[in-house]
Amino acid sequence: MNPTAGVTETLARYLVAARFEDLPDATRTEAARSLLNWMSVAVGGCRHEAVEIALAAVSPFAGPAQATILGRSERLDIMNAALLNGISSHVFDFDDTDQTISVHPSAPVLPVLLALAEYRPVSGRDFINALILAFEAEGRIARAVTPAHQAAGWHSTGTCGVFGAAVAAGKLLGLDETRMCHAISLAATQPVGIREMFGSMTKSFHPGRAAQNGLLAALLAEKGYTSSLQGIEARRGWANVLSSAHDFGAITDGLGAHYEIARNSYKPFACGLVVHPVIDGCVRLRDENNLVPEMIDRIDLAINPVVLDLTANRTPRNGLECKFSVYYSAAIGIVAGKAGEAQFSDALARDKVVTELRDRVETTVDPLLDKDQARVKIQLKDGRVLERFVAHAAGSVENPMTDAQLEAKFRDLAAGILPDDRVRHLMTLCRTAEQLADAGDIARAARG
Amino acid sequence: MNPTAGVTETLARYLVAARFEDLPDATRTEAARSLLNWMSVAVGGCRHEAVEIALAAVSPFAGPAQATILGRSERLDIMNAALLNGISSHVFDFDDTDQTISVHPSAPVLPVLLALAEYRPVSGRDFINALILAFEAEGRIARAVTPAHQAAGWHSTGTCGVFGAAVAAGKLLGLDETRMCHAISLAATQPVGIREMFGSMTKSFHPGRAAQNGLLAALLAEKGYTSSLQGIEARRGWANVLSSAHDFGAITDGLGAHYEIARNSYKPFACGLVVHPVIDGCVRLRDENNLVPEMIDRIDLAINPVVLDLTANRTPRNGLECKFSVYYSAAIGIVAGKAGEAQFSDALARDKVVTELRDRVETTVDPLLDKDQARVKIQLKDGRVLERFVAHAAGSVENPMTDAQLEAKFRDLAAGILPDDRVRHLMTLCRTAEQLADAGDIARAARG
Repeated sequence: MNPTAGVTETLARYLVAARFEDLPDATRTEAARSLLNWMSVAVGGCRHEAVEIALAAVSPFAGPAQATILGRSERLDIMNAALLNGISSHVFDFDDTDQTISVHPSAPVLPVLLALAEYRPVSGRDFINALILAFEAEGRIARAVTPAHQAAGWHSTGTCGVFGAAVAAGKLLGLDETRMCHAISLAATQPVGIREMFGSMTKSFHPGRAAQNGLLAALLAEKGYTSSLQGIEARRGWANVLSSAHDFGAITDGLGAHYEIARNSYKPFACGLVVHPVIDGCVRLRDENNLVPEMIDRIDLAINPVVLDLTANRTPRNGLECKFSVYYSAAIGIVAGKAGEAQFSDALARDKVVTELRDRVETTVDPLLDKDQARVKIQLKDGRVLERFVAHAAGSVENPMTDAQLEAKFRDLAAGILPDDRVRHLMTLCRTAEQLADAGDIARAARG
Repeated sequence: MNPTAGVTETLARYLVAARFEDLPDATRTEAARSLLNWMSVAVGGCRHEAVEIALAAVSPFAGPAQATILGRSERLDIMNAALLNGISSHVFDFDDTDQTISVHPSAPVLPVLLALAEYRPVSGRDFINALILAFEAEGRIARAVTPAHQAAGWHSTGTCGVFGAAVAAGKLLGLDETRMCHAISLAATQPVGIREMFGSMTKSFHPGRAAQNGLLAALLAEKGYTSSLQGIEARRGWANVLSSAHDFGAITDGLGAHYEIARNSYKPFACGLVVHPVIDGCVRLRDENNLVPEMIDRIDLAINPVVLDLTANRTPRNGLECKFSVYYSAAIGIVAGKAGEAQFSDALARDKVVTELRDRVETTVDPLLDKDQARVKIQLKDGRVLERFVAHAAGSVENPMTDAQLEAKFRDLAAGILPDDRVRHLMTLCRTAEQLADAGDIARAARG
């Protein structure tokens, strides 16, 4: 490392030089899993009202049909496709998460990579390398300002994700060091996302617009648009303006020695992570004991205090509210044996079997339990008592979803949107992305 | 005013209801002057390298030819036209300024109004009303966070201008109160511009991207994309996240009783405002005494301390550096009798007559002088001493440019870009905008 280079230049130098050949196997495998998981939620969300509205709003101004809106028949210019795919992939809040930095790393990045790959052919190796390096950029920059930045009210998926988007595009465009610095700085001046927007469609707009902002940053830099060489660390640069504290070592130390993507995790359940241990415990007890609701007298949950801060709704009235009810979540785990997007529907919110079981769920707060832990105790009408301690919820870094579980999630989300044979083909392309001669095939296979 | 309504809702309610018929004459006149001045710099900047690069970067992805790139033959979709016109109008730093809030109010707003007016016909009255209300939104919101917001490192032309852009579009689209709130909140979550970018092309990118962000916000809100109703004032809303202090009364008090546009000012000289008093004094002494450089022994300037903080360059090597040299600026005032964009050229930076006079300029700091004041003393070789005290520099709110001066500035900037008869026609359209049946005629007349 050049000791006189600044933070932005040091990061850019690494990103420009880093090659696919240097990636550890585990990192490449995790990249394919991230792609597979993200594609499932992007396809699954493609008919959400937020996507329909955004598509109607931008279509009259869109450019040539260059890139696929995943799961749909429409194709738009790469800029608008990036926006739409960013929205659809985050609208269920079912995409990947790095919990240590509160970033959903794929949503601002993969819309850029897929759109560009359709527009300018790129090998699967370069595609996967760009994905991993984009995660490095957004993850390291987020880590440098965690937790002060998020506590100030920023939505880090958008404000840090814009760097991932710029680097993703910058790698595929083959930017040199100076232009990569300019792309990063053009991204730095376009942070998107304040937390007041949580609870409205604007939350999923954040990764979509971050994807566009980063893509535009790289395209401008490619043509010679000038910016700062110190966009991250300058006195009035991104870190000082958007955070009261920072540790630049998180950005520049150990580049290439370890990878951000190792911290990525995938959700088995289509709701906030805090209720995942409860659902996990309920599903396992159900499956191991062939439970049906009529057998159950009551369910007692011991949970971390944060669970009731966020999901204490005892009587949710619609699918969205069900995601914020630990009572509903436990009940649906028993009734359905899973908790995908389809299990948080308005119809199930009113379903008699579910609501009667929901009303037999009780909670006890236990501060000794971690956020990915829970104890589930089920009292059966026949007098038996079933108990399970969840040490690490399914989907956590310590207890990750298996490849088979990711594929089951994919099939669930894509059902009714893409035909089964197309789903199988698309999953194969995601799993084998690094072997593809033309990574644009991935997005083309996701056309509805 | 409804005392229970929040800041965003109160502002939105006023903006939705406000009518052209209620505008005072002076406000409408100033709107025409703002339009005239802004159009001159947008046309003048249209061949700048930053515009050429941005145009090359976005053209492959642009949509239908809906809106004019002012001064040029290209037409792009309204989104991309807004970006390009925002860049061209700010790239000389010669556009309008509200010095009390450090905002260039037209650059994020007029690209949106002109693009939309070409796309969906709108009367001149609605166009002028939207312009004035957009200035209200960005000006009042900026005032609520001045000076903490700017001191934190934000470029308020972008971060506050995005509200002006959203409101400009929102008025032309006829949004209702709820949708105007959503547009404002979608703007709030897309602030653009940190001050580290000053000195690179990215500074002029800020109002261009702010224009786009606001336009997209309004178009999404129009179609029903949901956002917050408290995007400005919420705990994690724009004001709290982007400023350490705020006074919401600046946003909600006296709506309709006075107008932000009264504080707008136009630059007679194509450089930072701090050297304007010096240039003004030199030009006046020159004109009153028929001075030529050979007559002058030395020039002594008494100036506010901030002048040397920003423009102390004794030996500028190119046109851009000349803008940061009070010595050059005084000399060019004598040599040319004006200081438009053409007077800050690389050729003049090296001109023998100018540089020899420049080297006979001396400065004395006087903290008792205001920032728009200077004393100029010229010692002639024949023994005479000429002195002038500039109480308010030409172009300040107290000593505004006359309409004739604005038109002379327009002719200078448009020379070589639009033919003379077209320039006259375009100036007439700007002056009489409120009388137009179709305000889209303004942008169409600026086509190169």
